[in-house]
Amino acid sequence: MYTLKPMDHAFCEAEKAFSEREVPIGAAIIETSTGNLIATSHNEMIQRSDPTAHAELLVIQKACQILGLSRLESCDIYVTLEPCPMCAQAISFARFRRLYFGAYDPKGGGVDHGAQIFQASSCHHKPEVVGGMNEAKCAQLLIQFFQKVRGTSS
Amino acid sequence: MYTLKPMDHAFCEAEKAFSEREVPIGAAIIETSTGNLIATSHNEMIQRSDPTAHAELLVIQKACQILGLSRLESCDIYVTLEPCPMCAQAISFARFRRLYFGAYDPKGGGVDHGAQIFQASSCHHKPEVVGGMNEAKCAQLLIQFFQKVRGTSS
Repeated sequence: MYTLKPMDHAFCEAEKAFSEREVPIGAAIIETSTGNLIATSHNEMIQRSDPTAHAELLVIQKACQILGLSRLESCDIYVTLEPCPMCAQAISFARFRRLYFGAYDPKGGGVDHGAQIFQASSCHHKPEVVGGMNEAKCAQLLIQFFQKVRGTSS
Repeated sequence: MYTLKPMDHAFCEAEKAFSEREVPIGAAIIETSTGNLIATSHNEMIQRSDPTAHAELLVIQKACQILGLSRLESCDIYVTLEPCPMCAQAISFARFRRLYFGAYDPKGGGVDHGAQIFQASSCHHKPEVVGGMNEAKCAQLLIQFFQKVRGTSS
């Protein structure tokens, strides 16, 4: 049996976003102890006309609804791109054990760049962070999107 | 005719949250040129089991749906408490002209405190900010909530 790894689930969601002409970013939430996939989502900003409809916020909302919990302490979150400050703070609020992300985002990222949410005094839960997982593949999908769909380099 | 001011609408929503045993924070969005009230919301984190269900995110989602727009450049947002980093970044993404907020939040705020979202390099739209509007009234409601409902001082 072929089993997808957690970041592969996030990547599949990013590909779905691409096919819907949304910026290709995907996310997945896994229960740490069992490895069970709880929820997946992708960026839906355009179709929802909603600037907050990032993959991370949508997947957190979905997982909380599925589990009936507002704290996802027993879960890890996988995202194809470094979360922005909005999503990084949501990841902190949701109390994830660990955040794994793919490509780095020097322009809009809020974990290793910009607001560096987890280092701020306003952050009261810092997940462990593993950045750069499947980085080249995740970054390539974004580059391809901006070149082919939007005709720009970023 | 008695007309409520924008921050009064946000405060009424904070009172609704209080009555629902949610942390009493409310928000309102006004169309700047007409003064029309577009949407109001309050914190619904407990009832939705959702750590992202802050008043600001909910009111932005509602206003975008009502107007069919993902950018609220012609609007101002009023919130009874200094937005957290998640909501401050959402306010930036929504392109508000101006953010008015009530009480300051040294522990969790992300505008004048902590991550100071609008000063970070990851922030590409900085609204004008007016803090401390109806500050004492907004703060008092929160103090009353934590004392009476939760039996703590914060």
